[in-house]
Amino acid sequence: MHDFARELFPLCRSITGAGLRQTLQLIRGHVPLALHEVASGTSVLDWQIPAEWNVEGGRIETLSGHVVVDFADCNLHVVNYSCSVDAIVSREELSAHVHTLPGQPDLVPYRTAYYGQQWGFCLSDRVWESMHDAQYRVRIDSTLAPGSLSYGELTIAGREPREVLISVHCCHPSLANDNLSGITVATELARHLLGRDNRLSYRFLFIPATIGSIAWLALHEDLLPRIEHGLVLTCVGDAGPFHYKQSRRGDAAIDRVVAHVLARRSSPHKILPFSPYGYDERQYCSPGYDLPVGCFMRSPNGTFRQYHTSADNLDFITPAALERSLDVLVEVVGVLERNIVYARVDGRGEPQLGRRGLYRAVSGQREHEDAQMALLWVLNQSDGGRSLLDIAERSGIDFDRIADAAELALTADLIRPVEPKPSPA
Amino acid sequence: MHDFARELFPLCRSITGAGLRQTLQLIRGHVPLALHEVASGTSVLDWQIPAEWNVEGGRIETLSGHVVVDFADCNLHVVNYSCSVDAIVSREELSAHVHTLPGQPDLVPYRTAYYGQQWGFCLSDRVWESMHDAQYRVRIDSTLAPGSLSYGELTIAGREPREVLISVHCCHPSLANDNLSGITVATELARHLLGRDNRLSYRFLFIPATIGSIAWLALHEDLLPRIEHGLVLTCVGDAGPFHYKQSRRGDAAIDRVVAHVLARRSSPHKILPFSPYGYDERQYCSPGYDLPVGCFMRSPNGTFRQYHTSADNLDFITPAALERSLDVLVEVVGVLERNIVYARVDGRGEPQLGRRGLYRAVSGQREHEDAQMALLWVLNQSDGGRSLLDIAERSGIDFDRIADAAELALTADLIRPVEPKPSPA
Amino acid sequence: MHDFARELFPLCRSITGAGLRQTLQLIRGHVPLALHEVASGTSVLDWQIPAEWNVEGGRIETLSGHVVVDFADCNLHVVNYSCSVDAIVSREELSAHVHTLPGQPDLVPYRTAYYGQQWGFCLSDRVWESMHDAQYRVRIDSTLAPGSLSYGELTIAGREPREVLISVHCCHPSLANDNLSGITVATELARHLLGRDNRLSYRFLFIPATIGSIAWLALHEDLLPRIEHGLVLTCVGDAGPFHYKQSRRGDAAIDRVVAHVLARRSSPHKILPFSPYGYDERQYCSPGYDLPVGCFMRSPNGTFRQYHTSADNLDFITPAALERSLDVLVEVVGVLERNIVYARVDGRGEPQLGRRGLYRAVSGQREHEDAQMALLWVLNQSDGGRSLLDIAERSGIDFDRIADAAELALTADLIRPVEPKPSPA
Repeated sequence: MHDFARELFPLCRSITGAGLRQTLQLIRGHVPLALHEVASGTSVLDWQIPAEWNVEGGRIETLSGHVVVDFADCNLHVVNYSCSVDAIVSREELSAHVHTLPGQPDLVPYRTAYYGQQWGFCLSDRVWESMHDAQYRVRIDSTLAPGSLSYGELTIAGREPREVLISVHCCHPSLANDNLSGITVATELARHLLGRDNRLSYRFLFIPATIGSIAWLALHEDLLPRIEHGLVLTCVGDAGPFHYKQSRRGDAAIDRVVAHVLARRSSPHKILPFSPYGYDERQYCSPGYDLPVGCFMRSPNGTFRQYHTSADNLDFITPAALERSLDVLVEVVGVLERNIVYARVDGRGEPQLGRRGLYRAVSGQREHEDAQMALLWVLNQSDGGRSLLDIAERSGIDFDRIADAAELALTADLIRPVEPKPSPA
Repeated sequence: MHDFARELFPLCRSITGAGLRQTLQLIRGHVPLALHEVASGTSVLDWQIPAEWNVEGGRIETLSGHVVVDFADCNLHVVNYSCSVDAIVSREELSAHVHTLPGQPDLVPYRTAYYGQQWGFCLSDRVWESMHDAQYRVRIDSTLAPGSLSYGELTIAGREPREVLISVHCCHPSLANDNLSGITVATELARHLLGRDNRLSYRFLFIPATIGSIAWLALHEDLLPRIEHGLVLTCVGDAGPFHYKQSRRGDAAIDRVVAHVLARRSSPHKILPFSPYGYDERQYCSPGYDLPVGCFMRSPNGTFRQYHTSADNLDFITPAALERSLDVLVEVVGVLERNIVYARVDGRGEPQLGRRGLYRAVSGQREHEDAQMALLWVLNQSDGGRSLLDIAERSGIDFDRIADAAELALTADLIRPVEPKPSPA
Repeated sequence: MHDFARELFPLCRSITGAGLRQTLQLIRGHVPLALHEVASGTSVLDWQIPAEWNVEGGRIETLSGHVVVDFADCNLHVVNYSCSVDAIVSREELSAHVHTLPGQPDLVPYRTAYYGQQWGFCLSDRVWESMHDAQYRVRIDSTLAPGSLSYGELTIAGREPREVLISVHCCHPSLANDNLSGITVATELARHLLGRDNRLSYRFLFIPATIGSIAWLALHEDLLPRIEHGLVLTCVGDAGPFHYKQSRRGDAAIDRVVAHVLARRSSPHKILPFSPYGYDERQYCSPGYDLPVGCFMRSPNGTFRQYHTSADNLDFITPAALERSLDVLVEVVGVLERNIVYARVDGRGEPQLGRRGLYRAVSGQREHEDAQMALLWVLNQSDGGRSLLDIAERSGIDFDRIADAAELALTADLIRPVEPKPSPA
């Protein structure tokens, strides 16, 4: 995954344009992504697909031709969606178009100006403070013209039509944790699922943030009732502890599943309540949709000093951190796959386990064997209204042990899966 | 307010009679109170309006004519609703009609005998212990005769018919905190509201305790469905911390609004659960009505040593304490006025704030600006089922900031007020 | 009760057979128990009534005729439901049929083999380790033949058909706490109830564990809707603190009543959540039935070192412990009897207590008299939806004081009992 991130890193992504399109093509090298384009000007909910932005370069030069800041060195230097400019400006005029981080003088910030006609540069404060000329020549070679917004979609059909939505944004330029970590982990998770016989269906979206999810929601309202669970993945490559931000509902199955998986691992983690700020969960969890979509992260946006700066680079994310993030997600998916509601076939009393070989032949020896207890819990609670996760939570027994017991009981024809009550949308 | 309390202090109020009537007239000097009379003998729920009591004087004299105890000095000396008496009685006989506070030997207690034909005196234990004569002459000049129960009512019509009920009792004689503080603060709150364009309608009741609220309830059952919120005000003039006793429901909007206002102020306070003892909230919160009425106090009844004694005088209440109580109530009313349920006009996704000038032009700088967050919360939660207070509680953002954000959103035509679900009665 | 336990102790009980039958006959000497027999082979839910087991003796002898282990000394020596055997076996062969407790080398364990054709001996590890002969003669004189399963049932009709189920197992041989304590305390509780005019009806079941409750449930499904409350009694004779294991519902009235009674006693106790392991509550609380049945114990099964060993003898249970267990149960029954839902006869406002002699004639003296407060709580909360236990819990006032107040109010014709909402089954 880190290698793939390295490959993606140099591209200048934005919410439209060539960098985004190339990124999707590279993902398609790993998984059979369907690529979609939505034409500029298309109305999507309260928004319109913007004109397509492409950038060739951008520089600040002294009047003597010395290049002080160059997009070719770092694509953060040009404010994302800057309009083109070619002018000689005073240092004072320039200062209104320059973004620096005085508190982190060596870092280049990341700034965007999607929906306003502006031009601007991002540079380190140290460089800016070293610039004493009266005038500079500024030049940005960009185009903003009718085109389209690109996104990628991958569906993996399972035995059931209910879906798990995995959504990652891929509109940030050379930023590793806040962008590439999500893209690479999601790609790898998709590869994992492609090789399996899944109960649930999976839908992966690789989209530009905000406008991408809004466009997808607006254009696929017929699909929304299928979505049973969802996760936005971002910032999963740094070494910080896991953070899970709950869906707007707060008690959706996905919220409980992620909490269960994180709790049973020894590593520290934190569950955050929903808030309407963050990534595309804002859109999925907006009123009218209110989908059960949470956000899975390591260090949350805005909480690490590298956030939205040139320090969020390939050194900041590590192969081990990406790997462990993937591990957790594979576990989450594993629980979702097995989290079924059963009802007892007979439905009354406790079945005679002995004659089915499911009970210790001589009782009284080890009273609290976990496996036996898990089976008793499954048989006692499987009344058609409780999922295996409900049973795991109530019994305090690990989900997988409960699910194993359910498989024993299913094989012995003691329980049968039932349609869970439809989740309130 | 303290001056008004000083003016009201000398009157000998009771649940009927001239002192009560004069009190209402004096309130009418400040606000346009409607005065009502309910005739003695009228059946009101399980009760009957009692005969009207009036008292001219009362004395205990030595047989030699020395006045030991005189109503003219302090109207607490005569047990409220005492029948008239003119007799020479032995000290022993007298002792059965005398109330003192041996634990507070300098204070005169306050006693009533509304519904039993009795006579009695209240005096300080020190005076009583100094009385060694064998006989005394006792005289109470009172009348108990068909008349009426008086109460005052003030309605302030708002843009909506839903009402806030503010109820204070005014049946205690010269007691400052447990009576006059409520009367004066309620009067001032009414003056505040009279000068404004209010969304909600307000109904102020100045009534004798218990029988007054029972009479009003019995005679106005048609009005009760309008009452959305209510407060009984009492003991709001002492220097103690604020206490709010919840309505019987415990989770009514008024309960949550007062708790929110008290919590955001730095001063200590306490929320008390409902109990069926106290003031007129007992009646408003009785089964069959179960109105959302709480009780707002500083030191609760029975918890301060001056309670129901001659020490509950004009020195015990202070202008500053009355003023701060009024401040809190003005804040409470302010929250009630603004606590509206909205629904998004579009109802799906996140609206594009930028083109409405509601978003920072260049994003990424100060991520958690409170005002921006408040707006995002309002837009995310306004689904027609949550009030602004719900949103303030969930977001942890101050109510006023949320309400300001809602006004921005309303102005931008992003939300519209909706009829909240009717409150369960 | 301890004397009765002493009388019952020597009998070799099992889930069927003479020892069980004699036990029921001895109980019948105290209370008018109806004895029932269910024929071997009868299908009951997922189970079949097993063949009847009777045992005459069992021994391990040296080949020279020296008796090493003898059922006549202790009926735990023969594994319960052992098939008969008469053979000379090597020590190694024997070891597969021998159960000892190496960690408690002086104690004989208790083992059963109900549903497998096996033979076996239980002996102390010290004896087993002293047996060095190459061969031993083993002999068990038992029969397993068509017969029946016996159980005893006692119904005590109350004024209402709703029932309280009290269930105890009586299938363990010479084990005092885990068997006889429950039998003797239940018998005494039944005697207590037989001498009273009860509101509720009571049903006592003296049954073999698991198969007994399954048989009873299968054969009496028509009776189940009557069961409003239930308790399994076991391990109530040791000196440990009380433990109450909640019903599967967790918030059934019986759960709250037992918690209330235990909380108001000064002794330490613990409330345990439901789990599907334990005694016959497993069956009563199985899906399809889900009856409100908890389990009342002192030291829970498996938590004391004497559990299922020869040390669970008559010395382990004490008369005082049995007596205090009975006391608690009598209190629990007392609360159940009085836990009625009332509605106000008038239904609005606060009734005038004074003219009914229910109010202090002169108010203001002792504001918080408990009895007066209890009456106010009953009148305020009796709206047809809250039981007296609800009111006790909300007010924090002891149940009995609340129930006394309700009787006052009932006598004054202020409240009337109403049919509670049917409990969800």
